[in-house]
Amino acid sequence: MSEENWFDAIEVGDCFHSEVEIEVTAEAIIAFAETYDPQPGHLSEELAKATPFKGLAASGWHTAAITMRLLAETGWTDTIGLGVSLKWPTATRPGDHLRLEGRITSKRLSESRPDTAILGIEYTTLNHDGEVRQITEATVMATSTFHVPLHRD
Amino acid sequence: MSEENWFDAIEVGDCFHSEVEIEVTAEAIIAFAETYDPQPGHLSEELAKATPFKGLAASGWHTAAITMRLLAETGWTDTIGLGVSLKWPTATRPGDHLRLEGRITSKRLSESRPDTAILGIEYTTLNHDGEVRQITEATVMATSTFHVPLHRD
Repeated sequence: MSEENWFDAIEVGDCFHSEVEIEVTAEAIIAFAETYDPQPGHLSEELAKATPFKGLAASGWHTAAITMRLLAETGWTDTIGLGVSLKWPTATRPGDHLRLEGRITSKRLSESRPDTAILGIEYTTLNHDGEVRQITEATVMATSTFHVPLHRD
Repeated sequence: MSEENWFDAIEVGDCFHSEVEIEVTAEAIIAFAETYDPQPGHLSEELAKATPFKGLAASGWHTAAITMRLLAETGWTDTIGLGVSLKWPTATRPGDHLRLEGRITSKRLSESRPDTAILGIEYTTLNHDGEVRQITEATVMATSTFHVPLHRD
């Protein structure tokens, strides 16, 4: 595929979603927290009761890592993240089944590297009840190996 | 300590840093990627050669998770992240020893919850050569259990 074709195949407004859900267990929440975010709200149900979470909640960084996996599960690949902003309206809880819905919000070719696209994407991480666990706005670099997500809406 | 005292003890401009460094191995990069970010640049040295990284690079989400651990190592605890923005000027590489430098950029009491502070913090994740791997700007909630980091500069 020529450079023009791969870039033209990217459409602003294109929506995509994860085909799988990822279940988040208490064990996974605690294991992640022990390595990366050892704070009471993430370490045990007992310790978490005394925190504003009032019970075990996943580290936001755990939700962020699972969200990356969900993004990969949409078929998204071969981009390099330049910057992101995250919001956590609610915390991921044990028993959550997380999924992702995303869309492409902007595209342009890099001025310094005309073989490289700069894409804006937004994606939301939701649980099985539709509660929003994370909202991500990202700017990524993509080259001709980039594939538009398989699971387009 | 009274509510007033814990809030007054927080000073805008206060700087803090991690006392430890975290070494990032190729094995850790690959293990994180297999679970959370299965893209060629993070999965093996061989696959990564053909990517813009030109060699194995940690997922930005791995750098973000390690950065949270470094933040905890400053003595920072008992805050809840509301939102963050991340930039990855360069990617974490095998053999990096990461450390964190941070500062408090703003503070106010919540209007709806006067026992809760809203803090702005900025922190930078650097390797042993001083290369910047991540820049984080975060807004967090803190209550009276919040401790000002132990390792103030």
